[in-house]
Amino acid sequence: MIERYQRAEMKKIWSDKSKFDAYLKVELAASYAWQQLGLFDLDTYEKISNANYKLKDILDIEKQTKHDVVAFTKAVSNSLGEEKKYFHYGLTSTDVVDSAHGVLLKKANKLIKKDMKALMEVLKEKAYLYKDTPIMGRTHGMHAEVTSFGLKFALWYEDFKRLYQGFVEASKLVEASKFSGAVGNYAANNPEIEKIASKKLGLTPAYISTQTLQRDRHAKYVLQIAIIGSQLEKMAVEIRHLSRSEVHEVSEFFDINQKGSSAMPHKKNPISSENITGLSRILRGYTIPALENIALWHERDISHSSVERIILVDSTTLIDYMLNRYTNTLSKLIVYENKMLENINLSYGANYAQHVLNLLIDKGFDRTYAYDIIQKLAYQAMNEQISFKELILSHQEINQAIKIDELNPIFNPKQYLKHTDYIFNKIFN
Amino acid sequence: MIERYQRAEMKKIWSDKSKFDAYLKVELAASYAWQQLGLFDLDTYEKISNANYKLKDILDIEKQTKHDVVAFTKAVSNSLGEEKKYFHYGLTSTDVVDSAHGVLLKKANKLIKKDMKALMEVLKEKAYLYKDTPIMGRTHGMHAEVTSFGLKFALWYEDFKRLYQGFVEASKLVEASKFSGAVGNYAANNPEIEKIASKKLGLTPAYISTQTLQRDRHAKYVLQIAIIGSQLEKMAVEIRHLSRSEVHEVSEFFDINQKGSSAMPHKKNPISSENITGLSRILRGYTIPALENIALWHERDISHSSVERIILVDSTTLIDYMLNRYTNTLSKLIVYENKMLENINLSYGANYAQHVLNLLIDKGFDRTYAYDIIQKLAYQAMNEQISFKELILSHQEINQAIKIDELNPIFNPKQYLKHTDYIFNKIFN
Amino acid sequence: MIERYQRAEMKKIWSDKSKFDAYLKVELAASYAWQQLGLFDLDTYEKISNANYKLKDILDIEKQTKHDVVAFTKAVSNSLGEEKKYFHYGLTSTDVVDSAHGVLLKKANKLIKKDMKALMEVLKEKAYLYKDTPIMGRTHGMHAEVTSFGLKFALWYEDFKRLYQGFVEASKLVEASKFSGAVGNYAANNPEIEKIASKKLGLTPAYISTQTLQRDRHAKYVLQIAIIGSQLEKMAVEIRHLSRSEVHEVSEFFDINQKGSSAMPHKKNPISSENITGLSRILRGYTIPALENIALWHERDISHSSVERIILVDSTTLIDYMLNRYTNTLSKLIVYENKMLENINLSYGANYAQHVLNLLIDKGFDRTYAYDIIQKLAYQAMNEQISFKELILSHQEINQAIKIDELNPIFNPKQYLKHTDYIFNKIFN
Amino acid sequence: MIERYQRAEMKKIWSDKSKFDAYLKVELAASYAWQQLGLFDLDTYEKISNANYKLKDILDIEKQTKHDVVAFTKAVSNSLGEEKKYFHYGLTSTDVVDSAHGVLLKKANKLIKKDMKALMEVLKEKAYLYKDTPIMGRTHGMHAEVTSFGLKFALWYEDFKRLYQGFVEASKLVEASKFSGAVGNYAANNPEIEKIASKKLGLTPAYISTQTLQRDRHAKYVLQIAIIGSQLEKMAVEIRHLSRSEVHEVSEFFDINQKGSSAMPHKKNPISSENITGLSRILRGYTIPALENIALWHERDISHSSVERIILVDSTTLIDYMLNRYTNTLSKLIVYENKMLENINLSYGANYAQHVLNLLIDKGFDRTYAYDIIQKLAYQAMNEQISFKELILSHQEINQAIKIDELNPIFNPKQYLKHTDYIFNKIFN
Repeated sequence: MIERYQRAEMKKIWSDKSKFDAYLKVELAASYAWQQLGLFDLDTYEKISNANYKLKDILDIEKQTKHDVVAFTKAVSNSLGEEKKYFHYGLTSTDVVDSAHGVLLKKANKLIKKDMKALMEVLKEKAYLYKDTPIMGRTHGMHAEVTSFGLKFALWYEDFKRLYQGFVEASKLVEASKFSGAVGNYAANNPEIEKIASKKLGLTPAYISTQTLQRDRHAKYVLQIAIIGSQLEKMAVEIRHLSRSEVHEVSEFFDINQKGSSAMPHKKNPISSENITGLSRILRGYTIPALENIALWHERDISHSSVERIILVDSTTLIDYMLNRYTNTLSKLIVYENKMLENINLSYGANYAQHVLNLLIDKGFDRTYAYDIIQKLAYQAMNEQISFKELILSHQEINQAIKIDELNPIFNPKQYLKHTDYIFNKIFN
Repeated sequence: MIERYQRAEMKKIWSDKSKFDAYLKVELAASYAWQQLGLFDLDTYEKISNANYKLKDILDIEKQTKHDVVAFTKAVSNSLGEEKKYFHYGLTSTDVVDSAHGVLLKKANKLIKKDMKALMEVLKEKAYLYKDTPIMGRTHGMHAEVTSFGLKFALWYEDFKRLYQGFVEASKLVEASKFSGAVGNYAANNPEIEKIASKKLGLTPAYISTQTLQRDRHAKYVLQIAIIGSQLEKMAVEIRHLSRSEVHEVSEFFDINQKGSSAMPHKKNPISSENITGLSRILRGYTIPALENIALWHERDISHSSVERIILVDSTTLIDYMLNRYTNTLSKLIVYENKMLENINLSYGANYAQHVLNLLIDKGFDRTYAYDIIQKLAYQAMNEQISFKELILSHQEINQAIKIDELNPIFNPKQYLKHTDYIFNKIFN
Repeated sequence: MIERYQRAEMKKIWSDKSKFDAYLKVELAASYAWQQLGLFDLDTYEKISNANYKLKDILDIEKQTKHDVVAFTKAVSNSLGEEKKYFHYGLTSTDVVDSAHGVLLKKANKLIKKDMKALMEVLKEKAYLYKDTPIMGRTHGMHAEVTSFGLKFALWYEDFKRLYQGFVEASKLVEASKFSGAVGNYAANNPEIEKIASKKLGLTPAYISTQTLQRDRHAKYVLQIAIIGSQLEKMAVEIRHLSRSEVHEVSEFFDINQKGSSAMPHKKNPISSENITGLSRILRGYTIPALENIALWHERDISHSSVERIILVDSTTLIDYMLNRYTNTLSKLIVYENKMLENINLSYGANYAQHVLNLLIDKGFDRTYAYDIIQKLAYQAMNEQISFKELILSHQEINQAIKIDELNPIFNPKQYLKHTDYIFNKIFN
Repeated sequence: MIERYQRAEMKKIWSDKSKFDAYLKVELAASYAWQQLGLFDLDTYEKISNANYKLKDILDIEKQTKHDVVAFTKAVSNSLGEEKKYFHYGLTSTDVVDSAHGVLLKKANKLIKKDMKALMEVLKEKAYLYKDTPIMGRTHGMHAEVTSFGLKFALWYEDFKRLYQGFVEASKLVEASKFSGAVGNYAANNPEIEKIASKKLGLTPAYISTQTLQRDRHAKYVLQIAIIGSQLEKMAVEIRHLSRSEVHEVSEFFDINQKGSSAMPHKKNPISSENITGLSRILRGYTIPALENIALWHERDISHSSVERIILVDSTTLIDYMLNRYTNTLSKLIVYENKMLENINLSYGANYAQHVLNLLIDKGFDRTYAYDIIQKLAYQAMNEQISFKELILSHQEINQAIKIDELNPIFNPKQYLKHTDYIFNKIFN
């Protein structure tokens, strides 16, 4: 991933150093297990534990062997004495690589979970802050009915409860290990090694594997990240819509030295939300290679490897960036509550049509008959820019059936927020 | 979906009749709830319960109104007397449509879960049947080490435990309902309606919704189906590989009247496995529109609707077809155990190289030094088509270090199946 | 594809009847070629030409043979006498299937090209109709600078010139044929057959094929359709934006009996544009299976077949539907020119900031210095809802540098349309 | 893109330095045009031509302005005197960014076209080298009929003629420029600037644009690269199949110090082909964001920008890497012609069944009747591992109809290569 979209902690996780450290950690966990099983004595194990490597050596050797684990084991062996014969003992490369992936992804997941929690905090805060702020609800991009601005944040909070849970589940699938050898049957090995080493690494060993962990695990994980990305896009699209000049109910915070355009000095653009929208596309794109990685040949082919070098790093890096950036954007969001009220009034009250309709039905009107009257008056109000309420009151048949006291609450925006507390209780308690 | 890939039960679920029946069921559940809350008396409810419709009427009215729920409610209202004013009371179309989707998907999910269980039965049966059958394990398409043919089925069984669990979780997300009205705030309604009606329908109400249920739910569901499809492809690709003329370890059952080719009378092709491979691509393709459906505008836009008319039907229909077809294919699979043994011998014993290497290390050889010797002899065996064991024994340095009694077990295929029972215990108990 | 999105002509092309008619046409073209080469006499060819079939027979036989071309040839043979031995002579199934695809796609392409031309007519008409209609141009969803409404249509027209050309090129790739036999080397055949039969069918024979035409051809075709779909979405998203309540510069035509919502009588929604948006997602989804179809095994595997049964039919059917529907939507589009002017004024003239800036630079101001002044005044105008022009004039430094006569043209919307004719000339001549 | 998959020249094209050099080149082309139109004198232009920048300055300023073009213009202005007021004159950022993309992509395209030509050279060479080498043709992974190994390369050569042509066309779409300003109507500018500056840059100006070039252009380009990637995968999958232990007709070149596995010393794996297979998945994934970039809001939103920062760089970088790597792999491919003959014999002659069938039809046998006899005998030959030819000769009815002299040519592999020269002529002349 390009520098621009990398945050420091995540970048570190995916560095070469961090990768080979994870390899070493896995090798040592296996050595530990072999020692426990009595292959060699504690003293030998302690010698092995002091193994280390120089990154440059690995890269140099890899040029010859064209195999990074072989290069790694050679480089590490150079730091060992006679005990080196037990280094990598009974392991196949993928035992190391796949388990090390588990180690690295566990770190990445911790970060991402923290990111999600931080975003949820902001969502909750904003939900309560705007709980009683009326805003026009819109369907099809058109005025529908009044709702609470805080409900938008509450919705996203609830969305993130679901997505967080999904991410936890998907994380478990990849925080996995395997030490089952070349074709997954422990032939050069012993199932106990897997059990002991995995426990030491804090990973869950697969009940069964081929040479590799099965890639539906990683697919599910990458797909979950894409879903989270699309959720962020949903939020970003909402902010972009509310920002647009004619709506102008919110705007992204705009730094005093910031420039919106090199040519047009008047521009303030929701660029953070647009950025999130774009990056979510990238995450959707990664679902395809992740899914195609599942059907490997026989006990494994290595086609998934190049894919994962790119998409595991990039999807975790991007989602970390996106979550952080958007948490920041939302926390600084500027909100124009007056404009929200102004916009509500743009429909001349036609947005309350459903509730007038229901009132008429309660008064004994036939649904279809009443619908047709109301539809006509509502269109007239919007087209001619006159008060829908006045039109209602001037309609003889309706006028005879209802009283103005029954009508007034319907035309009060706050009325539409009456169940907000109920919803908040479900979500936040 | 085209007829060819539809099974009768699933086809019925997605018929127009079934759809409008589900609409009606949802409407009646809401009426039931309103009656419970005292909007009208039990007698009125019973009248409403007798509501019905003619499919043709709906389709005719829809041509005028261009709105299928409006057409539906009109058509149903014609079957009702004065009580029709309470039909669809306080609901918005999407309350009906989204909850009805919950009803229909619940039926589809029941079928798909049954399909998965049936496949798992076959996988388990085959796993045990071939538990002790040696087969060459292959990585990169190349001979690696001997393993058990039954382990392949055991692996897939374990895969399906994971995928079944994932499907159950994804199913829950879409077996959901909402009666929260036009913009999700219950303004024309009452949250109690949602609670009572959902319970009656056997669906889980969303804690919060906009006009619609949030589409990350359906995305997750469609993505899970794509993962299952890719898993089936993994199995199908294995069967295709084992079938190919030079390997010939299995073949699909071939009916006596079947023709493999219009031109080439000798052909017997693994067409069922190829079909599964193709259809899994279609399922992968559906993940994209499913993800793009998440970011709807404001309280909803209707762009997801056309998408779901196609992909919810097609992805459930295809996975039902694929699971069934492949269960059948695997249950009838013809297995050539002798050919498996013959193929093992094609590597002239070089496939046992790792174990000779480990033996040498145990005997005190340096790992790198021993690796280089063994690599050379293994290549010689394969290239010159001579016994790797003989070469080992003729190698002076090795010959002095090890005894033939130590070598013999290494060259016994059964040796590589020693942990099979252990693995089976983890999986099947 | 579901009935709802099928148009009659396209539906007919993809019917079973039409498919088998195409098979027959291909077979007869081959027979014609064999006759020309002298395999049999003209009299025999004429007998073969009378071949026919009953659809039901084919479907019945296919149940036994599980091979549709074998079933087809058997069914047709029943209509022939002794000459049947020359029917399907020297052909392999895929010679027939792939060439018949060429025949069917050629018909579909003719329709789609006609659709595109019809849309272009409407685009051109609207472009000229609104050539001189000022509308606020928006970038990032924010007011940028005034432009011409007609330019939007002119842009789309030019886009479609490019897409039409791309479609013509992609069409050529699939309007292809092959009669090269089982593995593509004409072993049971004669290259002359291909040449003669292809000419008779109006198709371009591939210079080389395996058992099949290579699937990069069909991938390119499906991808081009997806691009066209995304272009339609671009237009639909524009219309949805211009329709939204606060903007309200256009609206889709709304039939007098149409209902926008079952609950909200006041709603008029841009459902046609939303529908196009959704369906474009489906088309994007098809690109994945189309691309995955390219890497078939050896001289072919049949995995692409199930994919193409679905996506070739569905992508041509959908794009035909979408092009037609949207041509209709745009041709009936309701345009509110006054509202466009009103919206221009919402920025209080700040939208002209760039041009004031350029004027100041021309007057000798330093670019950065002037930018900062203008940016401040532009923000003030928008925030405080006061005239940007007034603010400019009250700014002492600026006031001294420029004259009101120089400023007036800048604040005239029509000024921004001065190059419209130039652009129109490039596009439409 | 990660270092591992970058080649030096492509890496350089996409460096920050190269990007800002391209920006400068575009700015100077515009200045040149303004001078030509007389905005300032030649002397001023020459001063502007000496503009330069320090990369560090741009990055520092960008931190403040959050806008890379503004930062760039500021940094460059610092190198200029009074003439700086004409730098970036009348341009909007995207005029620079999009046109600079044209400059950079033109360089990338030159590389990629060279890569493709180099691959085609190898394909042609191998085609002729193996023109007369018989190999078993396989359909469905099963033996079909004998063909020429050289034909595989000839096929791929012809494929690349098509793909090269497609790439040239797609390249033209992105080697484009625009100087039409903030909303595409040349309001702050003059269409002549675009014409003159584009010519100087060697780019094709768009007839019409919004603030940006339309993104169907870039989508088409990225999609074409994905098609080329999938083509490389097709070739790689063929090589992987031919390499697999049981087939063993080819192998990738294996360096003397190379290690196939850390555990299994006997392994030689087709890792280059597997790598290509994996990377093609990544390219397929990029098609989705490329297509989603098309539907920008109004005169542009900036969501496409983050996407393109990643996928334009990564898709060109990957395809350059893949083309080069695979050209190298194929040029060093080791071919076992004897094994090809051995494998042909694995079908015991059943692979010639179609030709025996045709002979019988010529002799007057009914097609269906003969097919059934031949099918039975062919199955028997393969199942019982006995000569199909012997079985044919022992079949009384057939024996009476045909002579052994008629049969012999059918069982000669070379017979199936008789039209190879004809095909080569079509392709290579």
